[in-house]
Amino acid sequence: MEEMNILEQVETLLSERRFSMLRSLVLDMEPADIGALMEDMDKEEQRLLFFRLLPKELAAEAFVEVDGDVQEDLIRAFSGSEISAVMDELYVDDAVDMIEEMPANVVRRILKYTDPAMRQTINDILKYPSDSAGSLMTTEYVDLKEHMTVAQAFDHIRKIGVDKETIYTCYVMGKDRKLLGIVTVKDLLLSDKEAVLTDIMDTNVLFVDTLEDKEVVVQQFAKYDLLALPVVDKEHRLVGIITFDDAMDVMQEENTEDIEKMAAILPTDKPYMRTGVLETWRKRIPWLLFLMVSATFTGMIISGFEQKLAASVVLTAFIPMLMDTGGNSGSQASVTIIRGLSLGEIEWSDTFAVIWKEIRVAVLCGAVLAAVNFGKMMLVDNLLLHNAAVTPMVAAVVCVTLVVTVFFAKIVGCTLPILAKQVGLDPAVMASPFITTIVDALSLLVYFNIAGILLHL
Amino acid sequence: MEEMNILEQVETLLSERRFSMLRSLVLDMEPADIGALMEDMDKEEQRLLFFRLLPKELAAEAFVEVDGDVQEDLIRAFSGSEISAVMDELYVDDAVDMIEEMPANVVRRILKYTDPAMRQTINDILKYPSDSAGSLMTTEYVDLKEHMTVAQAFDHIRKIGVDKETIYTCYVMGKDRKLLGIVTVKDLLLSDKEAVLTDIMDTNVLFVDTLEDKEVVVQQFAKYDLLALPVVDKEHRLVGIITFDDAMDVMQEENTEDIEKMAAILPTDKPYMRTGVLETWRKRIPWLLFLMVSATFTGMIISGFEQKLAASVVLTAFIPMLMDTGGNSGSQASVTIIRGLSLGEIEWSDTFAVIWKEIRVAVLCGAVLAAVNFGKMMLVDNLLLHNAAVTPMVAAVVCVTLVVTVFFAKIVGCTLPILAKQVGLDPAVMASPFITTIVDALSLLVYFNIAGILLHL
Repeated sequence: MEEMNILEQVETLLSERRFSMLRSLVLDMEPADIGALMEDMDKEEQRLLFFRLLPKELAAEAFVEVDGDVQEDLIRAFSGSEISAVMDELYVDDAVDMIEEMPANVVRRILKYTDPAMRQTINDILKYPSDSAGSLMTTEYVDLKEHMTVAQAFDHIRKIGVDKETIYTCYVMGKDRKLLGIVTVKDLLLSDKEAVLTDIMDTNVLFVDTLEDKEVVVQQFAKYDLLALPVVDKEHRLVGIITFDDAMDVMQEENTEDIEKMAAILPTDKPYMRTGVLETWRKRIPWLLFLMVSATFTGMIISGFEQKLAASVVLTAFIPMLMDTGGNSGSQASVTIIRGLSLGEIEWSDTFAVIWKEIRVAVLCGAVLAAVNFGKMMLVDNLLLHNAAVTPMVAAVVCVTLVVTVFFAKIVGCTLPILAKQVGLDPAVMASPFITTIVDALSLLVYFNIAGILLHL
Repeated sequence: MEEMNILEQVETLLSERRFSMLRSLVLDMEPADIGALMEDMDKEEQRLLFFRLLPKELAAEAFVEVDGDVQEDLIRAFSGSEISAVMDELYVDDAVDMIEEMPANVVRRILKYTDPAMRQTINDILKYPSDSAGSLMTTEYVDLKEHMTVAQAFDHIRKIGVDKETIYTCYVMGKDRKLLGIVTVKDLLLSDKEAVLTDIMDTNVLFVDTLEDKEVVVQQFAKYDLLALPVVDKEHRLVGIITFDDAMDVMQEENTEDIEKMAAILPTDKPYMRTGVLETWRKRIPWLLFLMVSATFTGMIISGFEQKLAASVVLTAFIPMLMDTGGNSGSQASVTIIRGLSLGEIEWSDTFAVIWKEIRVAVLCGAVLAAVNFGKMMLVDNLLLHNAAVTPMVAAVVCVTLVVTVFFAKIVGCTLPILAKQVGLDPAVMASPFITTIVDALSLLVYFNIAGILLHL
């Protein structure tokens, strides 16, 4: 609600051209909030006017915060010198993030108005695969030399620090830009001014390769509580650093992607409210189609048992319950394992331990579900609702099926994600909908076969 | 694999009592890795011996990284002076995290051997609800006075900084510890040494209340790229700060919790491999039972239509496909909305926009699914498999049901999470399994009614 009110205020001030008042209003706002405000503006000219009124640095910071579509609209409306001004203020990693989402002609226009040194850096970073550490890094870090004293290090930081994304972790480099160690500003502050960096630096440095998967990068940040992580090339030369704020963004993006995949949605990188109907549809329909067609196999199993079903129609009533319980049991296992894999808590070598645990959990769950269900069928269906077709034998068929289904569901649910990861597929795809389709078919096969045996159909 | 090798090395060195070699091996390791190593040790005496060989500071840092169970075992084995030594090295927020997981008698023992000032602080923090900002904060921050100069500020940081969790954001306080502004070490380094803090501090400070929900805290960190966030009481007095590493941990925990709830599992705070079979079972069985019992309503719908089904047995074969597609459509919508709500991208005021978007997506999805399914039933079932029972009219019944089911599924899927949040329930519970159960019943009702009308059953 508050944001709406600020939006209204800003729009009123803009239309009444009370620009100095507007400036003082936004000066106290965070860039992220100004970005959200710009996204909420409907009229493009209004947004452009508002953007032009912002102080240069704040404008660039707010620009980073808005969605790709809005960035593109702004860039298209900018003059060449406006593009130069924004690019001057951007950190390299933010500039790369932006450029990665733009169409080729807009990228050409941006690079045309970018300072040649920065253009070169941007082009270098763009060469890394989009899911690699290289694509996340910035080249704006503080580099120190091994023989510097603490006082010299501070002078150097004071001289170059203003343009760096973080100054708190500094990188000590030897010949050929090889990474020798790190020294934090805290170390520097707590050391004697004449101390030499070689003596105080930490040589036991965590780093990643430029091509490392960004999921691994995020795991390192979470595990070691890092502020920044250096990125090195094959010769152990420092090529950039990844800062914690970008790691946090990637963490949330990866989580959203996993959740989407688990719900049979192709991942998007846009927030829901800013995704069009057609795009939402395109992300959802492929899996719906695939799963619908897969479900026809389950239908074929029912068709194959049609005559037996006709002989004991009461069995049909328990199909939904068996399918749902199987699906739920399987997805509990699969989702737990998928999450464990993506947090790095479960590895290939744990496979047998996982299966053995799931077997025991499945037996416990199956036994309780079967007992409750037997009681319910006898007491509610048979006694209370006078459904004479629900005999103890029918209840036994349903309950044995439950136990067997839960057993298979848990095993399928825990093994498929691990297998998927092992062969290089995304485990997140092996979640509820996929598992459910397999377990449905399994549970019906079990159901009809047990019914055939116990009820002599 | 590598970790296993280190574990074997460590265990060999321990059993051969080659302690100095062991010390030099672990000295280069990260605390998180030492913690993982200790968790992997099977024998408790071995773990204790290993812990006692670690240098004091590293021991405390590694202690923070191990799981609650292992911490408890260690504490029980510690002498009073060992507890004192560990507590001395711990940051307050880590100490509180640990204590929150311990049984009361262990907590009493820990507090008995804790320095009185720290004990008081721990007790103060323990009073905050476990999902509040207060419970996440540390009281170890750098506080500065408004009239200090930059040089004085540096002297103060040098004096007290070594024990602080972060020194990079410092808090400028006025009378009664009221928070006036913040100043970063970067600001201090780039300012003149004689400048006074009042002139360089940023008075436009983001902060949270002690009782703020930790999910909101995480959203603030992600949105504003914060290194630390001050926590204030009702009188705007600074009581603590939350650092980015704790925010990152909470972020991952909240994501895991949401994913578990979406898969009908009661949330745990332990990694899968360290959760016992009984505990895993206890987290999974309640929802399985509830959903199983709920699914019997779907069964009752089938029972009610038993006679009609007996007249047209072919209809039964399409029940699984209709139920699955309905469930998948609904969970796509619900999971997307739940994620949007938890990231703060979707609000109550967006309800109608969300419903309107889902309606359009549902119509598109339903139309495509129905068209593909009609083609498949006519070409595969009727022509190819010579199933004469699959008439165009039966196909029409199935396809109309598909469209209506997808429509209802998407609407139920998108509204239930928003409604849940509005009335103060957890939206994550309104995910696939719950939605599936509702949509199952809906789709069968639609199916049998449409069949009744079109096939004159």
